[in-house]
Amino acid sequence: MGFIDKLRARWQQADSLLCVGLDPDPAKFPDRFVDDDDALFNFCRDISDATAEYACAFKPQIAYFAAHNGGEAQLQRLIAHLNAEYPDIPVILDAKRGDIGSTAQQYACEAFERFGADAVTLNPYMGRDSADPFLQYNDRGCIFLCHTSNPGARDFQELDVGGEPLYLRIARTIARDWNTDGNCALVVGATYPQELRAIRAVVGDMPLLIPGVGAQGGDVQAVVENGATADGTGLMINASRGILYASRDADYAEAAARAARTLRDTINRWR
Amino acid sequence: MGFIDKLRARWQQADSLLCVGLDPDPAKFPDRFVDDDDALFNFCRDISDATAEYACAFKPQIAYFAAHNGGEAQLQRLIAHLNAEYPDIPVILDAKRGDIGSTAQQYACEAFERFGADAVTLNPYMGRDSADPFLQYNDRGCIFLCHTSNPGARDFQELDVGGEPLYLRIARTIARDWNTDGNCALVVGATYPQELRAIRAVVGDMPLLIPGVGAQGGDVQAVVENGATADGTGLMINASRGILYASRDADYAEAAARAARTLRDTINRWR
Repeated sequence: MGFIDKLRARWQQADSLLCVGLDPDPAKFPDRFVDDDDALFNFCRDISDATAEYACAFKPQIAYFAAHNGGEAQLQRLIAHLNAEYPDIPVILDAKRGDIGSTAQQYACEAFERFGADAVTLNPYMGRDSADPFLQYNDRGCIFLCHTSNPGARDFQELDVGGEPLYLRIARTIARDWNTDGNCALVVGATYPQELRAIRAVVGDMPLLIPGVGAQGGDVQAVVENGATADGTGLMINASRGILYASRDADYAEAAARAARTLRDTINRWR
Repeated sequence: MGFIDKLRARWQQADSLLCVGLDPDPAKFPDRFVDDDDALFNFCRDISDATAEYACAFKPQIAYFAAHNGGEAQLQRLIAHLNAEYPDIPVILDAKRGDIGSTAQQYACEAFERFGADAVTLNPYMGRDSADPFLQYNDRGCIFLCHTSNPGARDFQELDVGGEPLYLRIARTIARDWNTDGNCALVVGATYPQELRAIRAVVGDMPLLIPGVGAQGGDVQAVVENGATADGTGLMINASRGILYASRDADYAEAAARAARTLRDTINRWR
């Protein structure tokens, strides 16, 4: 089963649109991880195990592993753990890759073969041939940046290109031309609900990955009302810091579970 | 000495605008590397040692390391070797990173602290705050994608935004607003000489990294004539495959040296 079908099945099965983001920052870990050489893996495993029942997807952010020597081996163990224990929950590698074809092929190998992710986030700026090596893995998901959650999203993404903003042109191009195998999705920040509405209007029921609730200030109600499909799905609403660091005491895993369940329920209230 | 000063000094010292790209693909290696667990490192070290005297910069492409288990450790050893043996030659980590601020900080740590690169390539699509964590390392270089060398560069980069193409708006914004510490540079593909000319006209003497000669078909004369600054510098003209795989026999290192010297001399003929 490909990424998109796995995601749709999980939305139903778990009754959840919550994506649990795994951005492990050792400076914020509970004390018990201080001398743990495998802290990145162990902390993320504990959080994943505690939150799995509330998650429609897991999203490890590779930068938080790549900043450390040996980080990639821990990321590999983590994704192997997730794939083994939670085969119904898709794993999105957040990597925002994008390069010329021959290099993109190496990055696709990194994400899909080496790390075994179900999907990867990608930057569309370099155009179609930079996406092809990823798209050709038609059982994997390609999640392209469209309108991001940060303030700088306004700098270039909103520039007018022939009567519509660039992010909308990108959404339209991907939906119409790049999604021939039905394995595309888009990143749209929770912090821009009107832009989310405009994107939903042009991409049909394409899944949208929504960062920016919690620490970045995005509003859940606005996200669901502007982004959900008619059947009340279509979204992977990501939360990272609010779940991972709900407590830095001994109850960090239970606190993460409570935060995940609460956010899942808050999302469901507006569906 | 910061990246840009180191590059300018090296342009003079080596009388070269040639950047040696290190994109190690084991399928193309000479036979002697077949059973070598450190083949990525050993091959790139041999190529670097053979071509150093003709190089104004080295540019390892991280994707070719990240596709393999343990690849990052070999990349670290390679950059440590380059920094120790060739302290006058700047090392550019080709990674095309770009993410929200907190994640970008992790990526900056990856490139500059963990790998010890003098500069990194970045994707500007997410805007200013995604660049800041890199820009704040003001002794390191931030090399932003502007107009890339691949066919898909036309898809979004050339869209008209208020009377000028997007790539030119990005070039102008970076030159005017992002380069306050003078540590910015741009990626401009050799395959688009007219666009290179337009970019040079708006960025003053900002260094330009030029992929796309050789395997991708870019023309050296057109690059130099359209991209060089008045003093005949301003460019890092990259070649990877044409140097790395000049021979796959026992003379691979000598063949790489010959290819590098020939290209350096060809470039100099048009300066």
